[in-house]
Amino acid sequence: MAPIKVHGTPMSTAARRVLACLFEKDIEFDFVTVDMKAGEHKNEPFISLNPFGQVPAFEDGDLTLFESRAITQYLALQYANKGTNLVYEDLKKEAILLVWKEVEAHQFDPPASKLTWELALKPFFGMATDQAIVEENMAKLGKVLDVYEARLAKSKYMAGDSFTLVDLHHLPNIQYLMGTSAKELFQSRPHVSAWVADITVRPAWAKVLAMK
Amino acid sequence: MAPIKVHGTPMSTAARRVLACLFEKDIEFDFVTVDMKAGEHKNEPFISLNPFGQVPAFEDGDLTLFESRAITQYLALQYANKGTNLVYEDLKKEAILLVWKEVEAHQFDPPASKLTWELALKPFFGMATDQAIVEENMAKLGKVLDVYEARLAKSKYMAGDSFTLVDLHHLPNIQYLMGTSAKELFQSRPHVSAWVADITVRPAWAKVLAMK
Repeated sequence: MAPIKVHGTPMSTAARRVLACLFEKDIEFDFVTVDMKAGEHKNEPFISLNPFGQVPAFEDGDLTLFESRAITQYLALQYANKGTNLVYEDLKKEAILLVWKEVEAHQFDPPASKLTWELALKPFFGMATDQAIVEENMAKLGKVLDVYEARLAKSKYMAGDSFTLVDLHHLPNIQYLMGTSAKELFQSRPHVSAWVADITVRPAWAKVLAMK
Repeated sequence: MAPIKVHGTPMSTAARRVLACLFEKDIEFDFVTVDMKAGEHKNEPFISLNPFGQVPAFEDGDLTLFESRAITQYLALQYANKGTNLVYEDLKKEAILLVWKEVEAHQFDPPASKLTWELALKPFFGMATDQAIVEENMAKLGKVLDVYEARLAKSKYMAGDSFTLVDLHHLPNIQYLMGTSAKELFQSRPHVSAWVADITVRPAWAKVLAMK
């Protein structure tokens, strides 16, 4: 049994962020499925791993973590010499990475997550899409992607000249949205479109999708 | 002139996060006031510093940053040997810090920021408070503070046994909310109340408030 365990479901965007990181770092792990339909994430033993009752939770030996972006940062630092290097050692380069990591979390993720829910997950669960929420968040995401288009015209990846945690954190929402009408938001912007094409064909990401 | 510049307004919660960090680290800086009423944050030259048009923006020599939590992380690492140590060198301790840093950003900040706006800033600007938004977010913040109460029963500060970036990131919203009816949410929970009393009397925070 691997010392690392991920508790979650393979459909969860937050769990996929952690899984993508583990495959990029070439780290073995066990995946423990949390039955969210049965409410397992809101009860013991899961809430002892994450008191907020959200997937994923993560164990590395006696260390228990939650919050996907904290887990990926830990993996990038703790396993610095394994697999893909996902952070920068140079502090000025890393500072730029930190900025765009926050941009993903605070600018991109809110509208992208709402669109993933409305356009990809609600239809999957047989629920009705709220068109007003879709329109509002398509407009918001479009403005964010205007900034990304300018950024990616100057920089091959979001944080610099190599694939990092910042690009990786975007993958789960982008993957869902490319299967919906929101695809146009990405495809209509040439540098964003090239970036999406590049990061979604990474072998580590294919391994995440194969877990479905 | 100091090599470090902070662009913003002293009332902004995000700007205050950066100011608190600079005072904790005992770093000299120049503060450049952005006239948000005149829309300076949405136009050049400001949007060349932050393309999202939000305060604060930050310069350290030729390095330009934005997003308050990226700036504080940079300061904690770049000026590790100055002032208060705000991160952990031990990676397992730092991983726990990373978790609670994400908790502040994704669990605490959304309801706390909405309450700061409705209960503190809207009245200041002569705007009407939306009671439905207040009630919804008081309930959400109460649930978050239930988790904090359990956490702070076991740990003096949010990330461990010393004051870190995690505690610091909470200060701006807590300061505003302690002057509103949301104060009760903090005072009714003994460990949260003791933590608030501790972190709000730090000399570095008094220097931020003196900038009003």
